[in-house]
Amino acid sequence: MSYTELKREVYEANMELDKRKLVTYTFGNVSQIDRAKSVVAIKPSGVPYEDLKVDDIVIVDLENNIVEGSLNPSSDTKTHTYLYREWSDIGGVTHTHSTYATAWAQAQIAIPCLGTTQADYVYGEIPCAAVMSDERIKGDYEEETGAQIVECFGDRSPNESPMVIVAGHAPFTWGKDAAKSVYHAVLLEEIARMAYLTKTLTPEIAALKQGLVDKHYLRKHGKDAYYGQK
Amino acid sequence: MSYTELKREVYEANMELDKRKLVTYTFGNVSQIDRAKSVVAIKPSGVPYEDLKVDDIVIVDLENNIVEGSLNPSSDTKTHTYLYREWSDIGGVTHTHSTYATAWAQAQIAIPCLGTTQADYVYGEIPCAAVMSDERIKGDYEEETGAQIVECFGDRSPNESPMVIVAGHAPFTWGKDAAKSVYHAVLLEEIARMAYLTKTLTPEIAALKQGLVDKHYLRKHGKDAYYGQK
Amino acid sequence: MSYTELKREVYEANMELDKRKLVTYTFGNVSQIDRAKSVVAIKPSGVPYEDLKVDDIVIVDLENNIVEGSLNPSSDTKTHTYLYREWSDIGGVTHTHSTYATAWAQAQIAIPCLGTTQADYVYGEIPCAAVMSDERIKGDYEEETGAQIVECFGDRSPNESPMVIVAGHAPFTWGKDAAKSVYHAVLLEEIARMAYLTKTLTPEIAALKQGLVDKHYLRKHGKDAYYGQK
Amino acid sequence: MSYTELKREVYEANMELDKRKLVTYTFGNVSQIDRAKSVVAIKPSGVPYEDLKVDDIVIVDLENNIVEGSLNPSSDTKTHTYLYREWSDIGGVTHTHSTYATAWAQAQIAIPCLGTTQADYVYGEIPCAAVMSDERIKGDYEEETGAQIVECFGDRSPNESPMVIVAGHAPFTWGKDAAKSVYHAVLLEEIARMAYLTKTLTPEIAALKQGLVDKHYLRKHGKDAYYGQK
Repeated sequence: MSYTELKREVYEANMELDKRKLVTYTFGNVSQIDRAKSVVAIKPSGVPYEDLKVDDIVIVDLENNIVEGSLNPSSDTKTHTYLYREWSDIGGVTHTHSTYATAWAQAQIAIPCLGTTQADYVYGEIPCAAVMSDERIKGDYEEETGAQIVECFGDRSPNESPMVIVAGHAPFTWGKDAAKSVYHAVLLEEIARMAYLTKTLTPEIAALKQGLVDKHYLRKHGKDAYYGQK
Repeated sequence: MSYTELKREVYEANMELDKRKLVTYTFGNVSQIDRAKSVVAIKPSGVPYEDLKVDDIVIVDLENNIVEGSLNPSSDTKTHTYLYREWSDIGGVTHTHSTYATAWAQAQIAIPCLGTTQADYVYGEIPCAAVMSDERIKGDYEEETGAQIVECFGDRSPNESPMVIVAGHAPFTWGKDAAKSVYHAVLLEEIARMAYLTKTLTPEIAALKQGLVDKHYLRKHGKDAYYGQK
Repeated sequence: MSYTELKREVYEANMELDKRKLVTYTFGNVSQIDRAKSVVAIKPSGVPYEDLKVDDIVIVDLENNIVEGSLNPSSDTKTHTYLYREWSDIGGVTHTHSTYATAWAQAQIAIPCLGTTQADYVYGEIPCAAVMSDERIKGDYEEETGAQIVECFGDRSPNESPMVIVAGHAPFTWGKDAAKSVYHAVLLEEIARMAYLTKTLTPEIAALKQGLVDKHYLRKHGKDAYYGQK
Repeated sequence: MSYTELKREVYEANMELDKRKLVTYTFGNVSQIDRAKSVVAIKPSGVPYEDLKVDDIVIVDLENNIVEGSLNPSSDTKTHTYLYREWSDIGGVTHTHSTYATAWAQAQIAIPCLGTTQADYVYGEIPCAAVMSDERIKGDYEEETGAQIVECFGDRSPNESPMVIVAGHAPFTWGKDAAKSVYHAVLLEEIARMAYLTKTLTPEIAALKQGLVDKHYLRKHGKDAYYGQK
């Protein structure tokens, strides 16, 4: 894929974030990696969506050096590249401050699996990365945000939950490309909204039984999946 | 009615779901039965609404065999056909994951009748089908979902509540045809939203007195109805 | 004013309800009285807004007899005419099932005055008419709804609160004409939403101090008002 | 800047308030000061946004005398001019009754800093000006509203929180010009909404740790800022 094609896909994924009403002003950014070339295309920092153009998209390498582009890349670039370096399966990353997902992040608790809507996309709960220590904040903050995310997954595959909330901050989502990471950002916001409503209606509700989580996740994922078209 | 006409009605009812903003991406599906021909037209599995065409609608028989169509029918098809087989009065079925109705389903409690908005359409509470046993989950899951719904009605007519929520999952609604089942899905979402607001504002509120339920339900339904035009 | 002009004003006020998103399907109706002719123009029963035409508006007298029109008037007509007969100042009445106002009605409590947004339009709380007795429900239900509303005002002028919620049911609003009653329906919904948010955030919050209620209400109403243009 | 240019900027900022859905009917007003000429352009009182024209904008001096314009200025003009007189850094002021910010004002509590979304724009909590004493209400009410706002900041710079809520009333925001004050009004509403959701989900949640507030505020503000483009 040429840089121009890569930039166009990232541009369109960023505009989709705006169209789906997940961002206010310049909040949010989407990136995509070209694994063959080891470069990442990402939104420039602080540019409003209505002014964004394909050529504004910045190309960086995995050590965050600018390869092509005249603007500064997103201030969250180091979080994106950290995730790409650690998780070789993922091809796109999205960061938003979408309302309900951010409320859960501010509440500093993982989103429990309360229904099949979540189980269709996530195998169990949506993890919450810990509040960062003062020492790490004073270090390389955006890089450490990536590290906090990877740490909270432990042995769990990032494919089992293509989304995370970072305590006191906001969500990150990922997928095979930029478009799919935006798709997961939209789903996370809707899942977070349903979970908020459920918990405020019945604070004592327990997580969905494992049998239903298995059934719904596995009818869409893995070798026995039977949802959708071939 | 020809298959083409049946597919057009089902297509339009599915698009209405999207237009009324009851679905995110591919969530949700609508079907309609032709009782004379014993066939059901239903949305194909996993096709986004913006790509859906009339000819994508799949025709199946009541044992879920494809009669016409090149795509897989909705993965929820067996739930739809179960309801058509058990309830001879109904002509259309809608399944959504609409936000507030799904929150009640995740809370695993029936929606009490708290006001005349609900009583205008439902005679009493909106039932909540039980969380499925592990045994049934491992059996024919979508068929068992239909069975759980019918069981939770017991001796109650499905006409008295053209809507149900399935615990841990989401709502199903029905009506004389596909369009009417979508109409009930829209009403359920609005009723569920009002009930959520009422219960979070005053958790101790009791159900509406029976005299008002009778008055509102019966001024719209049955032999003494006087609402609307002749 | 000719019947045609009266019907046009009522038609436009009904369409404004729909445009302001206060109604789902056929919920809601607006009327206006011509005091000189002692006739009321009102929405027909059960006609969807997208199909409504000026000539569908029904003219009735104050005893609910049809004066002009081929459709049945709203099933709530007797509530409207009761209010016009009892309160000679009002010229228009709106009934909706708008979401937040209906949630307060279902909670069966008056909306306390929690801020100046409410005090700008209502002098104190927004009253809640009582749940109707079984005897009255079995009598002339829609007429009794009007009576319940007037009773809950007691000696208070309907100008001090151009809006009421009816317990277990929904709101009614009024004003000098149909358009102004719709204006008050829009304000009520926004006020009810703010009050819901305030009470769920701080359940113990007390009503706004009387000095602020006086200041805000009286800077917009009465002889010393100084808001707006001359 | 000519009066015409000043009026155009204020007109456009007022229309942006409406476009961003922060106002219902005539709620809300925006102003901008020309420090060189010591005049303020402000929305006229009670004019609906759909009728507003550039030439309707009123020019007043800092003692609230009309300098140019045939309409009455906003009834809140004295609050705006008070802020301009006290705080020489600010160039634009916005007043709204936006829903979530007003709910916090009605709850009469400062909005705690619960996440980095707030810390990106506000250094700590968003203050809540006290409920006004009866004596001050009976004095020059709108002037005293300005005084209450300035008092609640104490030694804190208005740049550290370009937004405030006034107990029992609603928010005011400011910035280097009218457009920036509207920008802050939009951000405040979104921040207030997230804070509402967080507090109703987890009432016991504490404020974000100071290290994260510092990091996010200072990466956007001050000499070491690195967000956005040069």
